[in-house]
Amino acid sequence: MTKKFHLHKARLETLVDGVFAIAMTILVLEVKVPSISDKYSALDLLHALAHDGVVIFAYFVSFLALGVFWVWHHKLTEKVAEIDLPMLICSLAFLSLICFFPFVAALFGRYPQNLTANIVYVLLLGLILASQTLFFWMAMTRKKIADFVTPNEALNTHRVNLLSLAIYCISLSATGLRISIYAALTCLLAGVFLLWRFKRSKNQPALQSKN
Amino acid sequence: MTKKFHLHKARLETLVDGVFAIAMTILVLEVKVPSISDKYSALDLLHALAHDGVVIFAYFVSFLALGVFWVWHHKLTEKVAEIDLPMLICSLAFLSLICFFPFVAALFGRYPQNLTANIVYVLLLGLILASQTLFFWMAMTRKKIADFVTPNEALNTHRVNLLSLAIYCISLSATGLRISIYAALTCLLAGVFLLWRFKRSKNQPALQSKN
Amino acid sequence: MTKKFHLHKARLETLVDGVFAIAMTILVLEVKVPSISDKYSALDLLHALAHDGVVIFAYFVSFLALGVFWVWHHKLTEKVAEIDLPMLICSLAFLSLICFFPFVAALFGRYPQNLTANIVYVLLLGLILASQTLFFWMAMTRKKIADFVTPNEALNTHRVNLLSLAIYCISLSATGLRISIYAALTCLLAGVFLLWRFKRSKNQPALQSKN
Amino acid sequence: MTKKFHLHKARLETLVDGVFAIAMTILVLEVKVPSISDKYSALDLLHALAHDGVVIFAYFVSFLALGVFWVWHHKLTEKVAEIDLPMLICSLAFLSLICFFPFVAALFGRYPQNLTANIVYVLLLGLILASQTLFFWMAMTRKKIADFVTPNEALNTHRVNLLSLAIYCISLSATGLRISIYAALTCLLAGVFLLWRFKRSKNQPALQSKN
Repeated sequence: MTKKFHLHKARLETLVDGVFAIAMTILVLEVKVPSISDKYSALDLLHALAHDGVVIFAYFVSFLALGVFWVWHHKLTEKVAEIDLPMLICSLAFLSLICFFPFVAALFGRYPQNLTANIVYVLLLGLILASQTLFFWMAMTRKKIADFVTPNEALNTHRVNLLSLAIYCISLSATGLRISIYAALTCLLAGVFLLWRFKRSKNQPALQSKN
Repeated sequence: MTKKFHLHKARLETLVDGVFAIAMTILVLEVKVPSISDKYSALDLLHALAHDGVVIFAYFVSFLALGVFWVWHHKLTEKVAEIDLPMLICSLAFLSLICFFPFVAALFGRYPQNLTANIVYVLLLGLILASQTLFFWMAMTRKKIADFVTPNEALNTHRVNLLSLAIYCISLSATGLRISIYAALTCLLAGVFLLWRFKRSKNQPALQSKN
Repeated sequence: MTKKFHLHKARLETLVDGVFAIAMTILVLEVKVPSISDKYSALDLLHALAHDGVVIFAYFVSFLALGVFWVWHHKLTEKVAEIDLPMLICSLAFLSLICFFPFVAALFGRYPQNLTANIVYVLLLGLILASQTLFFWMAMTRKKIADFVTPNEALNTHRVNLLSLAIYCISLSATGLRISIYAALTCLLAGVFLLWRFKRSKNQPALQSKN
Repeated sequence: MTKKFHLHKARLETLVDGVFAIAMTILVLEVKVPSISDKYSALDLLHALAHDGVVIFAYFVSFLALGVFWVWHHKLTEKVAEIDLPMLICSLAFLSLICFFPFVAALFGRYPQNLTANIVYVLLLGLILASQTLFFWMAMTRKKIADFVTPNEALNTHRVNLLSLAIYCISLSATGLRISIYAALTCLLAGVFLLWRFKRSKNQPALQSKN
């Protein structure tokens, strides 16, 4: 029975990897080749590209965000032994939000200073964070955590998830939805948060092996 | 021989996962960034997005439909030991319908109240259901069901497939092709149906182990 | 050493499966949602879709062609033990032709009665067939055929490849590049050819086991 | 612990393969079906396609470039045992550059004689080369090289990476950014370089097995 569900998990991971790979690549479709009148003018093209600088910057920020979510999702599912129906639905909801990301990134790239575009972008990030947290919390309450993960470790992971949601909310109110500052802040926090989690996951087994 | 065909099955599954991942992601390409005259007006963009609400709703419904089909396909192929040529052709026909889904979803998203768009959308759902049912029926008649599945269990699965086709037909005539109601109904039925199947697949092995 | 190259082959197969999955899905991007003046007129939309009938038909034919190529490629690589550099380059050339297929299918879908579009379409099919044949011939001359394949069997496979190239050339001249007839003919021949190959591959081991 | 990270590596490879497969296929989206006034004129379409010859040529060159990068990345990661956080970030940066490639290829295909387009194209190739070199150098300094690779062999691989960067820089200044010559040169050099590396990797284990 466990083996059957393990396969299931492997296939879900294939789908997740595929969806992330495509969502990442589709982001670039929003960076349009600019139209310039004089085809041979290097300066004109340079100016046109510089004008699209925000879109190109948004591409790399969005790519980074997807990359962070991908690593995070992988780290969480690694600790889960099997996936039942409610968790599957939660995963599909998570994937539908990831697939929706290129549209929201395009919206933000086109209207970088529009409040609605900013709110939608930030809201989607929040929903993705929430669906991830929910997924792991469901795994905990439904006893689907892998055997090699101690209950303490699982609780710690859940705390980190909640913490990242809290950081998200605080930085949200602090920056007052000014997304250009927000994006930079998120990147920084995400980096710090990941570094800290990796360190933790290295320390944890060390402690565990002492018992 | 069995091993060779098993590999075959694994590769088909990779292709299926890839196609589903892309079809799901391509759905979002139909949600276009709206054009507004005043770039900085949050309200204008909000109204424009609300105007595209149907398209965004259609995206999530279509994503859910694809998700349900993906889980269903996985559940069926899990019970199949190997795939021969006629079953392969049936699978490719199934995939071609899945790949066609983004177009039909786009058609429906653009003309949500047009009868033709509704018929085409519903017809495609029906064809996908039929090709899945056919696939498993072929596996049964061609003796390609995996050893760990009892004949009784296989028959039950086939019955569930036929039942879902029947539910599809009944709800089709009942709603008189009013797709907005239909979509909600399908989601509900699909959810109920999946829950019931999962419960069944959990009970079945329990019964089996008693023998 | 063998193990290292076997991994290599597995990764090439992942790339091949990915490329095929995407090429198949991208085909549908060429089927555009038609523009109609009266949004609520079911008849107008039906006529518009019927007008695009050729494009939709071309989508399914192209999908079938890609499906056949995918099965064929899988059947050939199954018989190959490892892949060296020249064979890798041949595979990449094959993949670049597969990725080019959506463009050629779109060209044909837009100008179905234009001789140039027909020639380009048919030419690409021929090049793909040739690259596949070349790939297996290289595997034979470079002694990379898997151990479980007898030299006789390998030779037979090569003959079937050459035969399919010959059938391609004959049907090419016979139909005088009238692609609508050609497409139907190709499908038929491909079906017959595959059926025959499957039968052969089933008979072969039977004969082999008698020795 | 090692096993856990090995899985991690396997998943990264799935993502990499997916991203490459999509980036390769998306390249073709830039080759647009030309518009001609007389739908039935074979000559008109031929002229239109010949006019787009540069775009089609750019497609195949870009595809080849991505193919070379894919093989190269695979050859490098093969020699790496596990991936830690800094190496993961380096890989994600590499992937974001790969995903950015279709845009740059499209830019170059549209303005083949514009200096800016050429510089951006060449610069991206250089950045990809640099990120690959950095990745392997990080693996070396962080002791993540697989056990079956001797320190000498690892150093040789790093030297080849640096050499390819040097070749890139030399050919860059030599051709004075004339990209049409440059593209041909790169292809040639890449071919020679790969052949040489493959030969080396075949000789190395032979020497190693003597010890």
